Amino acid sequence: MSTLPDAWIFTASCPSRLGTVDVVTRFMAESGHYVNEIHSFDDRVSKRFFIRIAFQAAANFSREGFSDRFTPRVAPFEMQWQLTPPGHRDRVAILVSKFDHCLNDLLYRHRTGQLSIDVPLIISNHPDLQPLAEWHNIPWYHLPVNAQNRPQQEAEILALVEKYRIDLVVLARYMQVLSPAMCQRLDGRAINIHHSLLPGFKGAKPYHQAWEKGVKMVGATAHYVNNDLDEGPIIAQGIQSVDHALYPQDLISRGQDIERITLFNAVRYHVEKRVFLNGSRTVVLG
Amino acid sequence: MSTLPDAWIFTASCPSRLGTVDVVTRFMAESGHYVNEIHSFDDRVSKRFFIRIAFQAAANFSREGFSDRFTPRVAPFEMQWQLTPPGHRDRVAILVSKFDHCLNDLLYRHRTGQLSIDVPLIISNHPDLQPLAEWHNIPWYHLPVNAQNRPQQEAEILALVEKYRIDLVVLARYMQVLSPAMCQRLDGRAINIHHSLLPGFKGAKPYHQAWEKGVKMVGATAHYVNNDLDEGPIIAQGIQSVDHALYPQDLISRGQDIERITLFNAVRYHVEKRVFLNGSRTVVLG
Amino acid sequence: MSTLPDAWIFTASCPSRLGTVDVVTRFMAESGHYVNEIHSFDDRVSKRFFIRIAFQAAANFSREGFSDRFTPRVAPFEMQWQLTPPGHRDRVAILVSKFDHCLNDLLYRHRTGQLSIDVPLIISNHPDLQPLAEWHNIPWYHLPVNAQNRPQQEAEILALVEKYRIDLVVLARYMQVLSPAMCQRLDGRAINIHHSLLPGFKGAKPYHQAWEKGVKMVGATAHYVNNDLDEGPIIAQGIQSVDHALYPQDLISRGQDIERITLFNAVRYHVEKRVFLNGSRTVVLG
Amino acid sequence: MSTLPDAWIFTASCPSRLGTVDVVTRFMAESGHYVNEIHSFDDRVSKRFFIRIAFQAAANFSREGFSDRFTPRVAPFEMQWQLTPPGHRDRVAILVSKFDHCLNDLLYRHRTGQLSIDVPLIISNHPDLQPLAEWHNIPWYHLPVNAQNRPQQEAEILALVEKYRIDLVVLARYMQVLSPAMCQRLDGRAINIHHSLLPGFKGAKPYHQAWEKGVKMVGATAHYVNNDLDEGPIIAQGIQSVDHALYPQDLISRGQDIERITLFNAVRYHVEKRVFLNGSRTVVLG
Repeated sequence: MSTLPDAWIFTASCPSRLGTVDVVTRFMAESGHYVNEIHSFDDRVSKRFFIRIAFQAAANFSREGFSDRFTPRVAPFEMQWQLTPPGHRDRVAILVSKFDHCLNDLLYRHRTGQLSIDVPLIISNHPDLQPLAEWHNIPWYHLPVNAQNRPQQEAEILALVEKYRIDLVVLARYMQVLSPAMCQRLDGRAINIHHSLLPGFKGAKPYHQAWEKGVKMVGATAHYVNNDLDEGPIIAQGIQSVDHALYPQDLISRGQDIERITLFNAVRYHVEKRVFLNGSRTVVLG
Repeated sequence: MSTLPDAWIFTASCPSRLGTVDVVTRFMAESGHYVNEIHSFDDRVSKRFFIRIAFQAAANFSREGFSDRFTPRVAPFEMQWQLTPPGHRDRVAILVSKFDHCLNDLLYRHRTGQLSIDVPLIISNHPDLQPLAEWHNIPWYHLPVNAQNRPQQEAEILALVEKYRIDLVVLARYMQVLSPAMCQRLDGRAINIHHSLLPGFKGAKPYHQAWEKGVKMVGATAHYVNNDLDEGPIIAQGIQSVDHALYPQDLISRGQDIERITLFNAVRYHVEKRVFLNGSRTVVLG
Repeated sequence: MSTLPDAWIFTASCPSRLGTVDVVTRFMAESGHYVNEIHSFDDRVSKRFFIRIAFQAAANFSREGFSDRFTPRVAPFEMQWQLTPPGHRDRVAILVSKFDHCLNDLLYRHRTGQLSIDVPLIISNHPDLQPLAEWHNIPWYHLPVNAQNRPQQEAEILALVEKYRIDLVVLARYMQVLSPAMCQRLDGRAINIHHSLLPGFKGAKPYHQAWEKGVKMVGATAHYVNNDLDEGPIIAQGIQSVDHALYPQDLISRGQDIERITLFNAVRYHVEKRVFLNGSRTVVLG
Repeated sequence: MSTLPDAWIFTASCPSRLGTVDVVTRFMAESGHYVNEIHSFDDRVSKRFFIRIAFQAAANFSREGFSDRFTPRVAPFEMQWQLTPPGHRDRVAILVSKFDHCLNDLLYRHRTGQLSIDVPLIISNHPDLQPLAEWHNIPWYHLPVNAQNRPQQEAEILALVEKYRIDLVVLARYMQVLSPAMCQRLDGRAINIHHSLLPGFKGAKPYHQAWEKGVKMVGATAHYVNNDLDEGPIIAQGIQSVDHALYPQDLISRGQDIERITLFNAVRYHVEKRVFLNGSRTVVLG
């Protein structure tokens, strides 16, 4: 997967039909936009079409102009499309609990430019990771949660998401099950990391489950959050070999590298506009 | 993992206790056996000790002499031990159905010496793979099975296992569920390959299940057969990355490499006397 | 990488220019061809454009018609393009010496349909592998070679390549250095497997070199053959972890899996028309 | 590899001889020490023996007592041995330049206990990473270096190494070639990370070299520093797949994960006393 920091990204999906590619690429050519890279996929089962194009915009380019002229052309295709400018940075809220390996990794990559995002705030139900947020000069919100105040706490989170105009919520080992209402509100824009190779070892203490079964590989899964716990569309997975000499505590420790790399990959794919929802599955282009 | 073709292999397990290593290594030294390699593991949970030693036997070595002098020493330890001579080849019966990728791989490695085994016979419930067996000059038994004749067919298999003095039965995509009685009889000496990363996707059509879930990795698991379908102690696992563009049929095709390599690894570990049962888990040494 | 057995494959490359994608996709749409998948890449350094499209041809499709109408359109682009029908099978000649792990693997995948190729003949400078060829019913040519008869032997090989209308020559551990003239004749249509992660350990006995250096990983490289020994454009590479306990002979044995999988991958990419030469490098699409 | 935080670690090496294992394990048993784990290796080429034992010390244990009684026993074996108490932390000096991915990773693992080390100081020839050191409350030494002051700057580093009683120096992308005298002084206790799969792409700009060659995999190598640039004994290596769409700058960015994980692994193996020098190679036990 290349990174072309000076390219516009065009993404679209629509029902499968003759001409889906042409309606896009012809417009690009006629508008004088220079195509760097195309990846498309047409799913024979779901009968949907997906495309991602990186391009250099023509000199006279404007988003409004693009939209005005492109919209009528694709109307017959029921195409959902999106245009992302070079240098764009999704606004990402990170939710954490006490584990900091994923947060530390995301902030490191954010700080060094490996991940082109803004992180306007970090939210946690515990106070432990505040110093890490502060060192990175990122606003920190401590919103404790328990069985009683959950609806209210979630409302506060959603209010912050709105206030900060958040594009993506990342649950970086947040360790709380979101309510159906909250899942609904964040549909397609919240990514969770689960510390197993889903659908294996759903639910709590997956490394203990894995140890009980004597597996020789443990993994991690980054997925969109939805109502069905640990069942959201999978974006990325990673694995690591283990052996009999590792106790559950060792698995927890060793699994951290896979968790953070897998979460990073999923966030990167998402903010680079590579991920498309395709029913309960995802398409990840290029 | 080294291969020392000229070494004797000593393996043992017993309850954890002070002196388990010393009772073995002191005997080796006093007997003039030269130790090439030791791997031991003492499980703090199951409280069992496991050891594997590769050694060059002293000039005056005899198995009987070893046994006569060693047995009384380890009696207090309740040690189960085994001695395998250099050049030893386990006698392996391979059971297949119609898929030949695992069979082809095992026979290839058998023929070229990568796998130090004898294959006295191949058994199948279908006639399809007979030519492959014949090219390798291996006796072929066609034992069709259905709901009615299963007990009788399994009895025939067990009779062949006995007649040919089989050490290990390998289910190389045999595609039949063995009866509890048969599992019992082959306990600890039958290895199956399942085409998923167990315990994920147990049961039938695991690649279809994996595709439905939109996973980004598929795997294979080699395990000892036991009564509990797809739940036997895991010996080896392997994985392969996949993406949205692969349909179930593609997963089946791509998964074959992982299946055969994983099965080969498990068979190799077993015949090299590296695998120990440890409750429902395995220890794989060195 | 998907496999669409019913799709036509269109591949092309040309100097980078505005409109390269459009000239192709517009033609596809106007002709009523249904695009399954596009992958394109525009190299900013070499300033060349590469594209691969899988498509369902319109009902009235003919290759001649396609060519007659498409050729004038792309003339201004200096585009080199190729059309491959569904079910097409490249005609592949395999050259071997005494090692059979790569040959066995390619023939297995050929026989089972994992690799959509025809293998009209196998050529060897040694007689050892003839039985394997015969079991697969593939014509076998034994052409011994030595310092004296090399030009003549190579001429015989080239004559067979011509006679059998061979599309691709695969050096499956052929162990002979081809003459510059022969490399020239087979330019871009001969693939070699080298048993190291090139450019590391070029030349003879790479596993021994790797052992001397105490590396913790060994690899294999499949590349197009060219004049510059072990320097041809790389198509695929694979690696395997190793440790101190493996002697050179063990590395040779363990490396075989990586060699054959890497060679298979390269041959598959080539015959699926995914590989493009890009100076001394390759582009491998989708 | 298990981590047994409550275990003593005994390591030793000596020329290969009958009785090397027994002289150690008999002493352990007679002393009442409980062996958790043994890994030994006897190199047939270098004719050296290596062993690592994790054990629970008997109640009356003292290091002096161990040494007093063990030393005379192993005198005939010319055994070099070392005893490391539970909870021991090697004192590690980290040298950096401007890149912070390896430093950030080591400090993170240090802070969270994944790496059982003390980091008494960080030394750099540039001021850039001082804030990172300060956030971790680690003393920071800025020692600029150029062609003129190199001997003096190296002397200052060595003085700090002595003053802080440093066990291990880690060159975490320090980007300076150490003088032969300095290499000599730090022999066997300085680890460098090189951003290629050595011995491939030695020297400067390895990712650019890799891109030029069109490789499909890039890697990293952690090795002991010695006089021969990029030729020191290899401890750990890691790799990552890449493709044609990645420019050199992308390789640099993508390679960072492999670099830091490989360096972490090497440091962990070293401080867990798993690594033994074996001529120009290493043995890494268990």
